Amino acid sequence: MRILSGVQSSGRLHLGNYYGAIREFVRLQDEGEALYFIANLHALNTVTDGEAARRLTLETAMAFLALGVDPKKSILFRQSAIPEVTELFWILGTRVPMANLERAHSYRDKVENKKAQPDFGLFAYPVLMAADILLYDSDVVPVGKDQKQHLEFARDWATKLNVSCQPKYDPQDPLGLKSKVPGLLKLPEARIREETAVIPGTDGQKMSKSYGNTIDLFGELKPIEKAMKSVKTDSTAVDAPKPTEGQPLYDLLKVMLSPEEFAEVDTAWRQGGKGYGFFKERLIAAYHTTFDGPRARYAELEKDPAEVERLLADGALRARALAAPVIDRVRKAVGL
Amino acid sequence: MRILSGVQSSGRLHLGNYYGAIREFVRLQDEGEALYFIANLHALNTVTDGEAARRLTLETAMAFLALGVDPKKSILFRQSAIPEVTELFWILGTRVPMANLERAHSYRDKVENKKAQPDFGLFAYPVLMAADILLYDSDVVPVGKDQKQHLEFARDWATKLNVSCQPKYDPQDPLGLKSKVPGLLKLPEARIREETAVIPGTDGQKMSKSYGNTIDLFGELKPIEKAMKSVKTDSTAVDAPKPTEGQPLYDLLKVMLSPEEFAEVDTAWRQGGKGYGFFKERLIAAYHTTFDGPRARYAELEKDPAEVERLLADGALRARALAAPVIDRVRKAVGL
Repeated sequence: MRILSGVQSSGRLHLGNYYGAIREFVRLQDEGEALYFIANLHALNTVTDGEAARRLTLETAMAFLALGVDPKKSILFRQSAIPEVTELFWILGTRVPMANLERAHSYRDKVENKKAQPDFGLFAYPVLMAADILLYDSDVVPVGKDQKQHLEFARDWATKLNVSCQPKYDPQDPLGLKSKVPGLLKLPEARIREETAVIPGTDGQKMSKSYGNTIDLFGELKPIEKAMKSVKTDSTAVDAPKPTEGQPLYDLLKVMLSPEEFAEVDTAWRQGGKGYGFFKERLIAAYHTTFDGPRARYAELEKDPAEVERLLADGALRARALAAPVIDRVRKAVGL
Repeated sequence: MRILSGVQSSGRLHLGNYYGAIREFVRLQDEGEALYFIANLHALNTVTDGEAARRLTLETAMAFLALGVDPKKSILFRQSAIPEVTELFWILGTRVPMANLERAHSYRDKVENKKAQPDFGLFAYPVLMAADILLYDSDVVPVGKDQKQHLEFARDWATKLNVSCQPKYDPQDPLGLKSKVPGLLKLPEARIREETAVIPGTDGQKMSKSYGNTIDLFGELKPIEKAMKSVKTDSTAVDAPKPTEGQPLYDLLKVMLSPEEFAEVDTAWRQGGKGYGFFKERLIAAYHTTFDGPRARYAELEKDPAEVERLLADGALRARALAAPVIDRVRKAVGL
């Protein structure tokens, strides 16, 4: 089973990225052949400063490695290192109905939410994403709910290309059994993440860079601990039982603690007698338990960027070898 | 001076292609370093049969060579042989305002003229064309009037990328004189073809595959001569002087004969005494004078497709060498 996923290098990684996606990537390494790419071509839509784009790509790679993506098991690479992806993007695009893109959530949301004039890259984004998904003959693509439509598009467009490139009807072989043309693009299955994987930010909304409510994974400890201390609570008295609904602190503890540890915290929460400050300290402790190891590894990697580059280059070589037969089939089929 | 142009391999070449563009390509070979590409990626928007796409690309290359594009002087290559072009297409696209593309003539015309649902490739076409234009640091791009807007877009978008990638303001160097960052993308000049270069088809409209009024350059002679005999005329009597306005036969003779020969024909046309059949025979004779040589060379090339492939591969190598420093600058500037 070949698994593929990517993460945009458009900002510093935060708890939401880890619990929402990267933790699953680490698990999936043992279930099959995993390909993980740093989506630095997609990131160009939001990161227009070249220096920042380069730095964020490297930071994302270091974060993956520090968090347990194992380059011996998985193929970790920069999206831009595989030039075939933009080639497939163009080819596939010649068969993509404009109407699909016009109703893509990602585009409509962004156009409606901000007054800034949209750029072509944002509009074209689902087509490049489809090329990412289809280029490596992957079987399974773990995605968040918000990406479900994009995966459906990828399957639809792959089907369109597959059908349009089928050999002509042969009356001697009406079912195409003798046809030598293999399936052109493989249709991968989505593995939609559970709703529980939506991690609240400090203000209770979904944790997201665009809401400014994130708790970072790496970098200076002080602002990270400060962010955890700033998680929104209500005015329930210390002695009183705390409400569990709509409480980002409660939800973060649930995600970050082991089930046994959380059961204990849950009892204290419901009993009353502990203030929110106590639970925030538990959250900070949980952060350290989980991330002190990765933070130490990250610090090591930061000292040796050449080694990170070497790992990425090796990943790119392996990814490109998987892409080669696919793009070859496509080129032949469309007549390039 | 570096000159760049391309021709889509979306159909058989006809007189309009030769007198509208290819003849000029042949002339320009002596004015500078010319790059001519067969736009087989663009052609995917209209040619969806793989076998036909492959054949038309090769036929277009053979036609160029037969008509005098000299691979010793010019760089002749397949668009798809330079993978950097789709990479630049994506990068540039992240800075292209959607509003530009929505008002592109090429897209609006096609959407308004036919009821078929447009595809993304047609919408994205000016962005790929801009990448074609900018990838080789070209100075001059000969284009027809209908492509003028596309060239202006290419210049605008290049400027946008250049400006957005400029080094930060340095108070020690307010004019950027000490900056080591070179101009990122060169802005080429359009060389708009004269209006006289619009070649009428057999029905008097502009000669175009989509109007079904073409006279082919290569292939079976019979249908070509038949097409010339079918050029629309009026019912002016043999003895009477012929009108010169709105007469495709007259306009074709003007384009296809040398000025001296045409002066003679023009006199006969205005004097009367010769029927349209006489002038059609002159047109057929002119076709043979100009194209019998290229037809013979085309027949030779058809026997040796491997040689054509070799020439195209050589052209691709040379084009790619010119593209390499440009895409390198762009990658560095945007942070890939």
